[in-house]
Amino acid sequence: MVQLARMRYSSLVTDIQPERSIRVLRVGQRYVRDDRTLTHLCLVSRALGAEAIYLEDAEKDVTGTLEEVNRTWGGEFGATLGASWRKVIGEAKKEGRSVVHLTMYGLPIQDVVEELRKLDKILIVVGGPKVPGKVYHEADFNIAVTSQPHSEVAALAIALHEIQSGEELKRKFPKSKLRILPTAHGKRVVEN
Amino acid sequence: MVQLARMRYSSLVTDIQPERSIRVLRVGQRYVRDDRTLTHLCLVSRALGAEAIYLEDAEKDVTGTLEEVNRTWGGEFGATLGASWRKVIGEAKKEGRSVVHLTMYGLPIQDVVEELRKLDKILIVVGGPKVPGKVYHEADFNIAVTSQPHSEVAALAIALHEIQSGEELKRKFPKSKLRILPTAHGKRVVEN
Repeated sequence: MVQLARMRYSSLVTDIQPERSIRVLRVGQRYVRDDRTLTHLCLVSRALGAEAIYLEDAEKDVTGTLEEVNRTWGGEFGATLGASWRKVIGEAKKEGRSVVHLTMYGLPIQDVVEELRKLDKILIVVGGPKVPGKVYHEADFNIAVTSQPHSEVAALAIALHEIQSGEELKRKFPKSKLRILPTAHGKRVVEN
Repeated sequence: MVQLARMRYSSLVTDIQPERSIRVLRVGQRYVRDDRTLTHLCLVSRALGAEAIYLEDAEKDVTGTLEEVNRTWGGEFGATLGASWRKVIGEAKKEGRSVVHLTMYGLPIQDVVEELRKLDKILIVVGGPKVPGKVYHEADFNIAVTSQPHSEVAALAIALHEIQSGEELKRKFPKSKLRILPTAHGKRVVEN
């Protein structure tokens, strides 16, 4: 049987930034198109509190999927295709947005997370296999979610989760057609 | 410039289980083979503290990739192919292993995480698009990492991270050929 131990994330929170703005940039193209990973990165960004994602290149159906998810599940998450990483990083810096690059070569996230939580505008840069060296030098923070090889989707999820101290899990998505009623066993979905 | 604020996860930890054993089971086949997602699930399981993964079906090169990653980056993470979910869940229950199924329809992870942290043997079940209804009923916990659609890779990462209170980020991988020296800007790798 499921026993609930109601734990409030807020008890762990040190630096809440209700006005925090997080955007995501995907850098580093693959030889083979990898739209499933791109779709995962988009949906994770949306579900875990980012407001938009910039993609250098993607099939159009990635944005189609996102629009459909917004219509059904709410919110106004946006994707920009054809974004040059130089331009996106340059504009982020101009508007005082801190650039946080996720890489297994960076500093352990647990060592810098308190610093990251103080930032109110963040661009998280998610690398693929071919990230230009310049990204490492332009980034304000190069951050590792372990120094082991795993998944940019997982690294992005944990970075979003840590920067927002778990608060993103309680986020509401306005104007949804459907809404899930959390349940111990089974599936309960209601129409709004 | 990067400023370090040394934060210790241990300050957030409530129920450390140094002997905790976590395994992962992938359930729910797709019509189209999706080896990239499978590889991500395997590598995330390995990097974030699980000891093994059970896969119903996968191309052989998923295990080849894992063996290569173990050789280069250390540890003894294992994958079992051709595992029937019924058998894996049945055997888990027999040995007193709690079954934690990740699903967007489940209870919010933040509401049950304290309970999960008390478990010393866990089988995390990661669903694909086609999870049999019986899995929801056999699971001891059906847990949602948000009730929004995103990515099983991200849900697994956050579940592993939360259950282990972030301690998994400090894990060492013995007998590696290579090791990364975390750095603020650039890449530093040493041979062991």
